[in-house]
Amino acid sequence: MTDNKLRVAIVGSTGYGGVELIRLLQAHPYIEITSVISSSSSGVPISDGFPHLTNIVAKNLDGVNPAEIAQAADLVFTATPSGVSAKLVPELLAAGLKVIDLSGDFRLKDGTAYEQWYKHPAPSSELLEKAVYGLCEVFGDEVKGVDFISNPGCYPTATLLGLIPAINAGWIDPASLIIDAKSGVSGAGRGTSLMTHFAEINENFKAYKVNKHQHIPEIEQVLSQVSGEPVTVTFTTHLVPMTRGIMSTMYATLKGSYTEEDFIGLYREYYKDRSFVRIRDNGVWPATKEVSGSNYCDIGFAVDARTNRLTVISVIDNVVKGAAGQAIQNLNLMMGWEESLGLTFTPVYP
Amino acid sequence: MTDNKLRVAIVGSTGYGGVELIRLLQAHPYIEITSVISSSSSGVPISDGFPHLTNIVAKNLDGVNPAEIAQAADLVFTATPSGVSAKLVPELLAAGLKVIDLSGDFRLKDGTAYEQWYKHPAPSSELLEKAVYGLCEVFGDEVKGVDFISNPGCYPTATLLGLIPAINAGWIDPASLIIDAKSGVSGAGRGTSLMTHFAEINENFKAYKVNKHQHIPEIEQVLSQVSGEPVTVTFTTHLVPMTRGIMSTMYATLKGSYTEEDFIGLYREYYKDRSFVRIRDNGVWPATKEVSGSNYCDIGFAVDARTNRLTVISVIDNVVKGAAGQAIQNLNLMMGWEESLGLTFTPVYP
Amino acid sequence: MTDNKLRVAIVGSTGYGGVELIRLLQAHPYIEITSVISSSSSGVPISDGFPHLTNIVAKNLDGVNPAEIAQAADLVFTATPSGVSAKLVPELLAAGLKVIDLSGDFRLKDGTAYEQWYKHPAPSSELLEKAVYGLCEVFGDEVKGVDFISNPGCYPTATLLGLIPAINAGWIDPASLIIDAKSGVSGAGRGTSLMTHFAEINENFKAYKVNKHQHIPEIEQVLSQVSGEPVTVTFTTHLVPMTRGIMSTMYATLKGSYTEEDFIGLYREYYKDRSFVRIRDNGVWPATKEVSGSNYCDIGFAVDARTNRLTVISVIDNVVKGAAGQAIQNLNLMMGWEESLGLTFTPVYP
Amino acid sequence: MTDNKLRVAIVGSTGYGGVELIRLLQAHPYIEITSVISSSSSGVPISDGFPHLTNIVAKNLDGVNPAEIAQAADLVFTATPSGVSAKLVPELLAAGLKVIDLSGDFRLKDGTAYEQWYKHPAPSSELLEKAVYGLCEVFGDEVKGVDFISNPGCYPTATLLGLIPAINAGWIDPASLIIDAKSGVSGAGRGTSLMTHFAEINENFKAYKVNKHQHIPEIEQVLSQVSGEPVTVTFTTHLVPMTRGIMSTMYATLKGSYTEEDFIGLYREYYKDRSFVRIRDNGVWPATKEVSGSNYCDIGFAVDARTNRLTVISVIDNVVKGAAGQAIQNLNLMMGWEESLGLTFTPVYP
Repeated sequence: MTDNKLRVAIVGSTGYGGVELIRLLQAHPYIEITSVISSSSSGVPISDGFPHLTNIVAKNLDGVNPAEIAQAADLVFTATPSGVSAKLVPELLAAGLKVIDLSGDFRLKDGTAYEQWYKHPAPSSELLEKAVYGLCEVFGDEVKGVDFISNPGCYPTATLLGLIPAINAGWIDPASLIIDAKSGVSGAGRGTSLMTHFAEINENFKAYKVNKHQHIPEIEQVLSQVSGEPVTVTFTTHLVPMTRGIMSTMYATLKGSYTEEDFIGLYREYYKDRSFVRIRDNGVWPATKEVSGSNYCDIGFAVDARTNRLTVISVIDNVVKGAAGQAIQNLNLMMGWEESLGLTFTPVYP
Repeated sequence: MTDNKLRVAIVGSTGYGGVELIRLLQAHPYIEITSVISSSSSGVPISDGFPHLTNIVAKNLDGVNPAEIAQAADLVFTATPSGVSAKLVPELLAAGLKVIDLSGDFRLKDGTAYEQWYKHPAPSSELLEKAVYGLCEVFGDEVKGVDFISNPGCYPTATLLGLIPAINAGWIDPASLIIDAKSGVSGAGRGTSLMTHFAEINENFKAYKVNKHQHIPEIEQVLSQVSGEPVTVTFTTHLVPMTRGIMSTMYATLKGSYTEEDFIGLYREYYKDRSFVRIRDNGVWPATKEVSGSNYCDIGFAVDARTNRLTVISVIDNVVKGAAGQAIQNLNLMMGWEESLGLTFTPVYP
Repeated sequence: MTDNKLRVAIVGSTGYGGVELIRLLQAHPYIEITSVISSSSSGVPISDGFPHLTNIVAKNLDGVNPAEIAQAADLVFTATPSGVSAKLVPELLAAGLKVIDLSGDFRLKDGTAYEQWYKHPAPSSELLEKAVYGLCEVFGDEVKGVDFISNPGCYPTATLLGLIPAINAGWIDPASLIIDAKSGVSGAGRGTSLMTHFAEINENFKAYKVNKHQHIPEIEQVLSQVSGEPVTVTFTTHLVPMTRGIMSTMYATLKGSYTEEDFIGLYREYYKDRSFVRIRDNGVWPATKEVSGSNYCDIGFAVDARTNRLTVISVIDNVVKGAAGQAIQNLNLMMGWEESLGLTFTPVYP
Repeated sequence: MTDNKLRVAIVGSTGYGGVELIRLLQAHPYIEITSVISSSSSGVPISDGFPHLTNIVAKNLDGVNPAEIAQAADLVFTATPSGVSAKLVPELLAAGLKVIDLSGDFRLKDGTAYEQWYKHPAPSSELLEKAVYGLCEVFGDEVKGVDFISNPGCYPTATLLGLIPAINAGWIDPASLIIDAKSGVSGAGRGTSLMTHFAEINENFKAYKVNKHQHIPEIEQVLSQVSGEPVTVTFTTHLVPMTRGIMSTMYATLKGSYTEEDFIGLYREYYKDRSFVRIRDNGVWPATKEVSGSNYCDIGFAVDARTNRLTVISVIDNVVKGAAGQAIQNLNLMMGWEESLGLTFTPVYP
């Protein structure tokens, strides 16, 4: 039955990104998952740890063996922690596999910056160069036909999609950017710690890694590229007592006299061929639940004439558009398929 | 484009059942929604009140006019409050439409019992007789080819699927049944009240309508039919601080010496041709999140040799299997299609 | 038994501010609540609507009658909606009562600004002038001995306590202020609406009233007074799926070269005689749960040398320090008592 | 300043039971906490791990050294895991300390049953005999003047207070008892595991340890003692996506013809001198939030004439009445003080 289907393996199948890839790929017409892989739990049925997959995915978890993966699959998603991808991806590429990496290891072109923010040794500069940064709505054309894609981070996806058209148009001052970001707890992964303990985060709202989050250089790298000048941002991350969802609330000083309607028009034009970005009407702002379970990024605006500032509000489901969904969107673009293939899920509401 | 598709209208599109029908039907290959109907909000785009539908459903809400509905559609889902369906459904049937009613108005065959529990005048006994009770896994054969289906309640669905095989086999005493049920808040509907106020129900767990819930006679009617004797149950409903999900924890005295494995075998056999019921292995019980967003009903067992009692744990997503999903499953059966058509959603986890 | 106690009445006892006053005043040694008042529910026991008060407060709710209140009490808290206080407070003052008003009606000295932001007719300018704005840690001295206090808003309390020492010291540029504020749902009050419906806000994060919140002019009025120049702020409010808590994340451009330690020292000095403000150590930021149920305001800092900006994070329990707790603190100061009297609750954790 | 105060040490200060003891004891007039003890974190300020205690408790955590504890304190609360208390308590008693143990290690009089349910070696039978089981409202008289109290479990407290008056009166059949219990996540402790991971339990409801929970023999031991015959119960535990609160929904067959009013009268009489048990009026049932943060146990009833069964609903805050609050209540009784001393907290609502 696999004759006409792309055979796909998923490394890191027991993390939230991996298990969401499995959920979404059930609906993809051209894909067959041939191996679900976990370094920690190989040999047992994946439905033991994820009973929601009972009767849906019957496979046992496989171990991490690049040669075996290359036998079983044409393409591999690496939903592995940063540091792990850096070591594993070169072996997978060497084994002849196409790779879409969901970690942060290949997003920064500058290895020195990587080591400063990630505290791991950087991958080779050759590989950093080779990795195509797959922010689909902006760099979708560059992804077509390549073998190796670095999938954007969750915060950068919400943030960059919300800022790039305005930066690109020169309507806001890149030096003025302040990004106040909020994420559901699934963004911290499935690992257990006090930070993800229910009793600690329920009925709680907290900031973390203020000015220190490793997604800062990723955002700055892309904004610098788009604006043509070095951009430095103020960036705060917060944890929200919910499972899924990211909101970036972003502030910038206007470089001219623009209204909300101007921005709405600008963004709708910029994203006019992109089905996963939805621009809200004037006076309405998106909430995270309105994209939950889906691959949408929804964006709204407020212009404050009193302070001459723009506020942009951008929301995604961090596990979908911020991870597994965008990875599949990248796969579609890489293969030359319609980018929305298998991804046309209506958000789950309420 | 509608030549080969069944044209469907949804009355009550701005309630949670209605809007979930819209979500699920996006994925159904043989259906086209031709009218979304709301008595309270007609004339405005449905995405105004439900921004998650932006760019997905472009329609304006229509008013409730049976003649117009019959022009636009072949079949209508009535996701209307009890009391409203009782009046509207006869008109829709008279206009030549097929009807699947999601309210409680046509579930009880005994109009007197209806009036006692629902406090409304009962529909005509002729219509009560005509309505086929669409608990798909049990009465699926009776639904085929009919024009009018009464979709089961959320609590009865979780409860009956968890009890019927054991009652049918005569392994448990029907006189001993105690049902402790718990529901997420979406079960209370989208109407606003103190009972659904976030600050009142968040970080709270409460019982309501103890021994008074209108789903009691529905459960008793079916269990009496299955067991061949009048069955009376003790039934408590609780509100859980979550949006979706129902769990019925059910207790019964064993009529013989049976193990968990016996019940697992019995249920797997009973549901062997039914893809939406999943029986857990011994020592594992389902949680509501494991079916969230999907049409599954998952069931687990514990036998306590010390007390000679069986505990059955049954979970569903109340908005899907407990409402919109089962309604579409009934539509599939009614039309003679595969019952899982358009419903093969993997649960959303986490 | 009331000979030595101040007799207190509470108008608006069935709102969250009113019922929290009742909770907190149970622990106050010098106060007796002599009347709990509700315009909507008079005549029934308050514990009917608030069963948590069973056996604690035996009173029936009284109606709103200034002459009767003046018979029963020496001082009245008006925890009434904006617009209602504007009409009621003059009558209560005229009846000889001391008044602490928790609404927004007497916070703005400029009646025109009030009408612009609140959309109600402003109270008389004489009364606006008479009302003392009770931000205790800043204007505590002005409250002593007065008859009429306007209690600050919840967002302004968290925001102003987090900004005033830095503004006062001239270390940050008032023209650069951006305030990203987040509140639990109790801040929206006990009234029912879709905005407070559990299924709509649970597992959701949303912005509202962007640049339009009526607390903006209150913040600007005080910051202008402190800085000696007109201050205009960018201010965004968000709703968090939790019941209690406010966080203000605030951004400002530094006017010199200051470190986190500089700000920690500055704030600890500014608040050194104030027991309810706690300044976090370097590298640690407060979370809302760390003040839940208590009258504390906790504050932390981050300086970003890369962007020359300060980030201030300030948290309160909106129902306590943002409403009922600060009102009692104002009462203590007004009466010349220790400001922490009856308010030394340890935060409830977890 | 400690001359007139009882000096108290808390072992296990970094667990939820320990840190709640600290919160509650801040309000106790006769107690001074002289040592907060943690085997894992000694040497650091307790407010490092619990910032909500900043400026409230300045102490560093001490290590576990019975001789040093005996120097510093007169009485010690052991809020330690089961298995740890069994070893530590004998040493503390030998060092001359009074002990109130919050673990399950000394609740069962039968060491064999302990080993079967807890899977640890039992303490000596001498110590099991010596430990007085401190269910205050039932065995309060036995606690007076003793040196060693075993504090009841959280589920047993809610369950036993809800059943004992009816069992004692002979109005219900002990052989018919079915207990469906639900707990907030704090009941699982502060240890990290998938079971307490926010993304796994939020928007989820799950059963666990069905018929296997170690609180079963504790409940049966007391009910057997009260009824004078061996009692075996069916007992299911569930995890609710909230932090605090337990509800026990309990079912029993009536042994005569009794109404709700009969039970209300019976229970109010039984608990008439006990300020922490509140019996709801007919037709109203308590919710967990109505006791949150307080030492109350609230109880309501429903009689179903159709099935001849009683439903009892009993709620507590598991961290207060189910742990730290009842431990302090036991301390008060042990010392001959008013049992409510330092415990008259109004529930935090909402």
